[in-house]
Amino acid sequence: MHKFEEKTISSEQIFKGNVIDLKVDEVELPNGKTSKREIVAHPGAVGIIPITKEGNIILVEQYRKPLEKALCEIPAGKLEERENPLTAAVRELEEETGFTTTNLSFVTSFYTSPGFANELIYIYITDDLIQLEQPPQGDDDEFVEIREVTLDQAKQMVLNQEIHDAKTNYAILYLHTLRKG
Amino acid sequence: MHKFEEKTISSEQIFKGNVIDLKVDEVELPNGKTSKREIVAHPGAVGIIPITKEGNIILVEQYRKPLEKALCEIPAGKLEERENPLTAAVRELEEETGFTTTNLSFVTSFYTSPGFANELIYIYITDDLIQLEQPPQGDDDEFVEIREVTLDQAKQMVLNQEIHDAKTNYAILYLHTLRKG
Repeated sequence: MHKFEEKTISSEQIFKGNVIDLKVDEVELPNGKTSKREIVAHPGAVGIIPITKEGNIILVEQYRKPLEKALCEIPAGKLEERENPLTAAVRELEEETGFTTTNLSFVTSFYTSPGFANELIYIYITDDLIQLEQPPQGDDDEFVEIREVTLDQAKQMVLNQEIHDAKTNYAILYLHTLRKG
Repeated sequence: MHKFEEKTISSEQIFKGNVIDLKVDEVELPNGKTSKREIVAHPGAVGIIPITKEGNIILVEQYRKPLEKALCEIPAGKLEERENPLTAAVRELEEETGFTTTNLSFVTSFYTSPGFANELIYIYITDDLIQLEQPPQGDDDEFVEIREVTLDQAKQMVLNQEIHDAKTNYAILYLHTLRKG
């Protein structure tokens, strides 16, 4: 048991949705007092860094309703129930970019917002892209547009905040590190 | 208007909490169909990269109830209502590490989970730390423990996933990039 562990006294389910669930836990703190924790349950997600033969990175532009604007991100998507992240990464790559691959390398994983959500995102990279003749249909409520940019352009997009989400910022910096050592 | 914009048809407030709110929006998609979006509203947050005179990074270990385990992270915290992120960064640095500073540089900002939440996190860095004689009391439901590690140790902790959250992974890689150019 961790010395700061918060023991669950009670748990109230607030919402069960298609993407997330919400519960409020009453917890016992290390000092014996109690507090409430608002917790979003998320199935987890994958992000893929697709590198073309020319060394460019493929990004997708997508409208993000929580922000009421479009973001430019690496291809990504949430896991289906009990899905292997590697399987999900191939599916999302195919649906969002029209490319597939037989060679995906795991880069890292991280929690996106550990203060209020359990979402864990797995990041993969591939420089071995194969154009699909007939790309699979994606989710019917998802609309994305592909952009291919050089790594220098991507870095500039991070600096001027055209690229503005955790996984994509991380991906660009990771590529930069790979190149520079 | 963005070509993929999703027009709100109706919005149902599900939950209003201390940290997050939850709503479900019914939206009109670009193809005229409708869908539902589950949206977490978050006030935003700050993360600080504190560098000691010796060039080490200060991390805090904290129990994260959504994960049911402790994580090692850079000092961080959520914004109060309408709070300037710079003010919040000084406060969180003082509360969580016992250091203050008069010199914080903005590094970047990013959305942590744009698929379901609007949380925007602002990252700052300082290598100009001043030990406080009487550190302020933090939130009374927050228990953290400081760890000071070298940048090489931190990188190793990223690789073996002891460091495992978006803002901290990003911070370590950012420092690595700064040093290596």
